Parts: sequence; structure tokens; C-alpha cells
Amino acid sequence: MKTSEMINRKVDAVMQKAWSAFRIYSKFSLKRRKSFLYAIADELEKAGDDLIKTCMEETNLTEARLKNEKVRTVFQLRSYADHCESGDWLDARIDTAIPDRTPPRPDIRKMNVPLGPVVVFGPSNFPFAYSTAGGDTASALAAGCPVIVKAHSGHLKTSEMVAELIKIATEKMKMPEGLFSHIYSPSHYIGEALVKHPYTKAVGFTGSVSVGTQLFRWGNERKVPIPVFSEMGSVNPVFLMPGKIKESSQEIARMYAASVTLGVGQFCTNPGIIIGLESKDMNDFLATLSEEIRKIAPAKMLHKKIADSFMTLRDSILMENGVSVVAVSDLEKSDYCGIPTIATVSSEEFLRNPKLQEEIFGPYSLVVRCKSLDEYSLIARSMEGQLTCTMMATADDMKNNDDLIDDIKILCGRFIINGVPTGVEVCLSMQHGGPFPATTDGRFTSVGGDALRRFARPVAFQNWPDELLPDELKNENLLNIYRTVNNRLTKDR
Amino acid sequence: MKTSEMINRKVDAVMQKAWSAFRIYSKFSLKRRKSFLYAIADELEKAGDDLIKTCMEETNLTEARLKNEKVRTVFQLRSYADHCESGDWLDARIDTAIPDRTPPRPDIRKMNVPLGPVVVFGPSNFPFAYSTAGGDTASALAAGCPVIVKAHSGHLKTSEMVAELIKIATEKMKMPEGLFSHIYSPSHYIGEALVKHPYTKAVGFTGSVSVGTQLFRWGNERKVPIPVFSEMGSVNPVFLMPGKIKESSQEIARMYAASVTLGVGQFCTNPGIIIGLESKDMNDFLATLSEEIRKIAPAKMLHKKIADSFMTLRDSILMENGVSVVAVSDLEKSDYCGIPTIATVSSEEFLRNPKLQEEIFGPYSLVVRCKSLDEYSLIARSMEGQLTCTMMATADDMKNNDDLIDDIKILCGRFIINGVPTGVEVCLSMQHGGPFPATTDGRFTSVGGDALRRFARPVAFQNWPDELLPDELKNENLLNIYRTVNNRLTKDR
Repeated sequence: MKTSEMINRKVDAVMQKAWSAFRIYSKFSLKRRKSFLYAIADELEKAGDDLIKTCMEETNLTEARLKNEKVRTVFQLRSYADHCESGDWLDARIDTAIPDRTPPRPDIRKMNVPLGPVVVFGPSNFPFAYSTAGGDTASALAAGCPVIVKAHSGHLKTSEMVAELIKIATEKMKMPEGLFSHIYSPSHYIGEALVKHPYTKAVGFTGSVSVGTQLFRWGNERKVPIPVFSEMGSVNPVFLMPGKIKESSQEIARMYAASVTLGVGQFCTNPGIIIGLESKDMNDFLATLSEEIRKIAPAKMLHKKIADSFMTLRDSILMENGVSVVAVSDLEKSDYCGIPTIATVSSEEFLRNPKLQEEIFGPYSLVVRCKSLDEYSLIARSMEGQLTCTMMATADDMKNNDDLIDDIKILCGRFIINGVPTGVEVCLSMQHGGPFPATTDGRFTSVGGDALRRFARPVAFQNWPDELLPDELKNENLLNIYRTVNNRLTKDR
Repeated sequence: MKTSEMINRKVDAVMQKAWSAFRIYSKFSLKRRKSFLYAIADELEKAGDDLIKTCMEETNLTEARLKNEKVRTVFQLRSYADHCESGDWLDARIDTAIPDRTPPRPDIRKMNVPLGPVVVFGPSNFPFAYSTAGGDTASALAAGCPVIVKAHSGHLKTSEMVAELIKIATEKMKMPEGLFSHIYSPSHYIGEALVKHPYTKAVGFTGSVSVGTQLFRWGNERKVPIPVFSEMGSVNPVFLMPGKIKESSQEIARMYAASVTLGVGQFCTNPGIIIGLESKDMNDFLATLSEEIRKIAPAKMLHKKIADSFMTLRDSILMENGVSVVAVSDLEKSDYCGIPTIATVSSEEFLRNPKLQEEIFGPYSLVVRCKSLDEYSLIARSMEGQLTCTMMATADDMKNNDDLIDDIKILCGRFIINGVPTGVEVCLSMQHGGPFPATTDGRFTSVGGDALRRFARPVAFQNWPDELLPDELKNENLLNIYRTVNNRLTKDR
């Protein structure tokens, strides 16, 4: 049998089971879904050092980082479970009948229902938080959807171990078979087979622009198109404003030396471009940044291919016209390391050469030197969509640069003042998603409770007998959730 | 100059102006946007008989129908304006800083912001309510987006007159130039040019599956993909359950004779397929339905092409294997009429022949005769996505057919019990959008206040000084809107 045919069969078997599970699980109460997510969180929380050790071996990430990431993953599961139970994301609406109107108004009630089976593709850089039991899985399960995880080859054993924990939780909580599946093949074809299966109703992906865009195209080209949420790349530009840099050039330089090199620069929110105005303050900033970067040791990247790719891309950018090195780590490097590097280029050259705007995944940032603030707007307008943009600014810097702020807002999903883009808080106000190509759909977030909304769609129930409506929409507000009743948001019964 | 080049220039000029207007209008307060929509509603409301007369000439629709549709359009504008001002659709979220946490939690606040210029393509069958000042225009303007209407050739004069009214409102309310544009070309290329322009950020379309799908493909194939909301076709299946049909076969037959022929069947929610169980009650239903249909006069359709297409499609379906006529109007017909027609077919033949599931735009319905209720589920599972599904059922019919209800729910955006699908209430609980190909994105509605959400995306503001935040997110709840503050929905300041 050909590989593709074998994969099709394997995928079909998994998707058939997922579909059967969907018909059962989608009708479970919010409370029951919540308990299931809590059960997964409990299993993950109590998983022993073996899991961390295996993951360290597979990813080169440090014990401290992985322990933190595991804590974050457990928190995410519980947080999305709580949000599920709150019912806010259901957007429940009730418009009661007006029988004596001409024509009579029928009783109509609407709420979000789950889309169906969701396929999740995790990235290499977050083996826990965006992988097997990560944000996409947690939000899809919370929304009432079965999940099929395509395991990442970069941490396959870790993924299998986590899948096993989910299986234990599934059994403990008496969840239907096929609600969660873990699938792997070394063949790239498995991605296509999963996205194109008729029972796949949505896809969550975190990774490169090329793969994320391919999945998106497949999703749209289907006979019945499906939403594909690819969280891809960003250079996360940072705009240094003159007032702020005058106030604290050294402090900012230290913040950014740390942010650029955090986790060997392997974050989707890594600040890859820093825009500054030629000045003495800027020189001070660069001097401190250099000093700091030189002291930061090269560290192992996730795997050889990523390290090779980082060094190749970095070297090719350093060869571009007008690009010069500001600082490189002075410290010793071993195999597969990412060497902290800061380069610089003039604004003219930057605007002329689109290659300089490409993401380089690793501990690298390019400082763009401008001659005037007008060039900041030109740069913002030349850029593609971003997960985040940052402005280091005093209140006066902001007040005097209205238009620039508008240009930046159009560009991004999260707009940070006086901070660093690394560090993505898991909370309802988080927007982790931006205009293409940061993500394929900037109207949604992949972090925070609003991530559930990616996997739901509204259904209106017209003229249903009260006792047969879903509990969320019955006259009596049994679940004590917020609902908009005749245009008024209320918890009233 | 080639036509395509002329069109590109014309489109570019319009889109440049729309983009400039976007930068101004998107920052106007909710209240100011509301006033603008009210001003358009006022102009439309006081527009004289000329408008109705012109529209009657262009569309063959009756005076009563058009007057009603104009009232609906005015209501829509005001209703979406009110919803805009309520701020509910902004999904404002505030998570305040926790400085003493490790690591410290920053202050993050999120709300929906407008996407940018929206291109609207209206259909032939709603010259007011889904056209120039219709639902897509009203919801895009309410969401803070400029609108470019591509006029429909079927009611071009009407469209120009309405555009003129919007222009008057624009000037009265001192809105920026380019906020609303009206564009027309007999060349099909204009659609492509509009969808592909870089400043187009979303598209609203109502019409055929072929055109709607084409626009959707263009939107996705762009360098930066954009959402294309095409509201296309549906056969709006009706499931007659045995208990209910036993109770009131004649009443149901009369309801459906009226619904199938309402507006010469020219509604996207026209019930095109009726599923029943072979029985004496079903024979009674068919007898009354026939009697009623024979008495309903053929009436002029929107234009010759639509009438020709209806008669051709109807005749070709009537030639299909196993399809027979139940009733045809006995009354006299003139040119361009749609002749009310009911046909019937066995469930086996229906399941075998996908052609029978295609939408026939006009006063036609196909009654499918089943031998068992199991066949209802087979039929539901064989169907494509629908705007609406209807079940004529007693409470017992519903309780005894759980699985069938699930099959139907998966299929549609609105699920009606004991009613007719025609008649789309403008209210917040309305879902006018269903799984593909009913619409290209069943996660959104094109009717009701939630239609605004199609044209917005969230932006998170991290660590912003309070006085520079949008009013919607400042500490003090100046606009008195609902916001989720630290996971609690509240109007507190």
C-alpha cells in the first residue's frame, strides 16, 4: 500500500471516532467539560520528573524553563475550563416573542455551539504550552470539540507521554472514545490528510509562515472550507521614542538585551527589529546593548536544524548591503548554539530591502537608525502584520505622535507601551493574533479565554418549546450565566 | 486604455479615499457613529414615492413589498446604530496589573477595533434591505469601517438614489470624504479589482453560490487574505414529523403554500425541500398544498433572466428520474412570471440524485416521500450547509428523535420549530448564516446586531497610560458599557 493511502486510512479511522465522540461530548454540560479539563491539568501537574527529563533531552530547553512551561500549561487548562463554565463565550441571546405585533415576532434564542473535530499542530518551541495538552487543545476541548493532535517530531516522546496523561483523564472522567487522539507520521502528507478530511472542522497551528500558510490554503480549498488558525511569524518591532530614550537609554538597553536573548530568542514575540532615532541617546542605548549582549552566553537551540538555520539566516543578513554588526556574544559556544547578535542598518537601506524585515528565529535583533520621526511611520507602513508592536515612550512622546500610533495599531494584535513583547500573559484581555502573516486570522486569539471562540459558531433556535432548549437558553437561567435578553445583558432568570 | 486598467484606476481612487476616511472615522466615538447611521435612516425614511416607483420599475417587486422593505432598512440602520452605541460588541476586557506577582502581571486591556474599508455587493432580490444602505453597509459603518458599494445592475437607479441620500447624510453629519462610495461598471472585472485591492479589508456579499465562492477564493488568495462574508444559497429543508402532521396537516399545507410562493419565492430562506413520511396524513397535506398552490397566481420575477432561469431549472428538475408534479398554479401568467410549482420524489431517488438538492430560486418546492424516520437522518446527513432548517413537530416528535435533531442542528444556522423559514427577524438573537455553502463563514451572521462583529478585530493595549487609552478602556467607565474586568462582567467604573 502506498504511504499516502496508509495515512488516509489511519486519519479516517481517527476522524470517524472523533466524529462519534463529538456527537456525545458536544452535549455535555459546561460543568462536565470543565471537570475534564481539570482532570487533564491534575494529571499533568502530578506527572513526575521523567516527563521534564525526556523533554529536556528532546528540546535542549532548560529544566527551569520547562518546569515553568508545564505550570503555565496546567494553569491554561484550568483557566480555559473556568472560562468555559462562565458561559460568557456562548454569547447567549434571547429575544422573546411579541405575538401581537404585525407580523408577530417569534421567540428566537441564540448561542455558540462547538464546530466539530479540531486538528492541532504544535510548534517545536513550546513542547507543553502550545503542544499536546497546550492552548489549542485546551480551548478546543473547552469549546466542546474533540481534538486530534499531530505530534511534532521535535518532541515526540514528550508528546506521547502527555497524550498518555490525557488518555488517563479521559478514562477517569468517562469521556467518549476518540475525544482525544494523538497521531504521528514522519511523512508530511499526514498534515494534508488531516486538514482535508471532511470531519475536520477547524485547525490550530503554531509554527512557520510557510507551513501555516499551506495549511490555510488547504483549509480554504476544501469543498467545504474550514477555519485554519495558524499562528506564524512576527518580527515584533519596537519603536524607541526620543523622549523615553533620553530618560532611560541604559535601562531600555538592558531590558532589550534580555528580551532578545530570552529562551535563545526562540519566541514568536521575540523583538527582531528595533527602530531608533540617530542621537547621542541612541548611541548610549547601543553602547549598553552591546555591552550586555557580549556578556550573554550562546546557548543550545531546540535542535540542530534550527541552530543551523539561525546561523545561516543571520550570516546572510549580515552580508546585506549597509548592515553592520553592533555586538556578538563574546562567550564560548558549543554545538547547535544560537549566538546572541545585534546588527544595525540605516532607515533608507531598511526601507529599500524587504529581506531585512524577515523573521530570524533566534537571539538576534536589527536596530534601524532613522533621521526623523517621519521615517518611523514609513517603516510602520512598510511592515507586514505583527503579533505585537512596542513603543518605548513618555506620555509626551505619545501625545505628539498620534499618526504614528495609528499606523502601529493597524499593524498589530497587541500594542505594548514601555515593556517587552516577550512574555504572553494568559488572561482574557490577551490578544495573541495579529494581521496576516502574524496569524491567518487576526480576528481571533490563540491565548486567553477568548481562544475558545475560534471553535464555535452560533445557532439560533426559533420557537422552541422551553423544556427542549439547551439549558443555556431556557427561560429559567439554570446555569446563572450572562445572557442578552431583549437587548439587555443580564443574569436574570 | 484597457477596460481592466480603467477599472483598476477607478477602484484605486475610491479605495485611497476610503483609507483616508478610515483613519478619521475609526476614531469617532460610538455616539457619533450612531448619529451618522440615524441620519442615513432619516434621509431614507423621508425619501419620497419616486424612490419606490423607480425601484418598482427596476425590480417588478410590488409597492407594498418595497415599502415594507424600506421600513425594514430604516429599522436596521437604527437598530445597528443602537447596538453600536451599546458597546457590547466591543468585547472590552480589562486585566489590571499585579506588580507584586513573580513575574509581575502587566495591565492589559482589549477591545474590538474596525478592520478597515469594506466592499459590499448586494443581491437582486433586496434592493433596499441588503443593498446600498442595507445590512452590510449599516453593520460595517456601525463597526467603524468605510463602505464601498458595488451597485447591482438589477436596480442601478434605485442604488444611485439611495447613495445620494447617504451622501446627504454624510455631508450633514460632517463625515470624512470617501467614507461611503458607490461604484458601478458593467464589466465583471470590477468585483475582482475591488476584492483584490490592498486597502480592502473585508467583503460582504449576498447572491449566488458561484459568485460568492469566487469572491471568497479571491479574498483568500490575496497576499494578505481578507474575510469574505458571502451569503449564498440554501434549500432550507423542512422536516414534517408524523405527530405534528397528524395534528394539523391542512394548516401546515396552507402555511407552506404561502411560504413557498412568498415574494415569488425569491428569498434566500425559501423552503425548497419538504421531507415527509408516506401516510394518509401526508396525502392530506399534499392534497391541501396542491389545492392552495393551484390558486396562487404566477407573478413577475425580478427580471427576465431570473424568470428564465427559474423556468429552465424547474423544467429540468421535473424531467429527472422519479420526479413528478404535485401541483402547478392554474392561473394565468404573463411575461417573466414564476409559476408556483410543487413536485415530489421518493427518498431513494432523492438520496441517489444530488441534482435534486440544488437551490431553484423561485416559487418551487420538492416534497420528498420517506418510508421511515431513519431516512430523515440519511437525508439530513446527505445535505450541504443551510441557512435554516425547520421541523414541524410536537414535543413528543422532538423527544423521540434526538439524533435527528442533532443531525439537523449540525446542518444549519437557524433551527425553527413549527414555523416557516421565510421572515428573517432583525434582532440580536438572529443567526443569518450557516455552514458552507449557505454562507462562506457560518461563524458570523449578516442580520442582527452581531453582524457588526464581522468587521472588527481585537487589539490588546498593554501598559498604556490611562489618559491615552480609548475611552472604552479607561479606568473610569465613561461610556457606561459592559466590560469584563478581572474576569467579571460589569458596568462598574
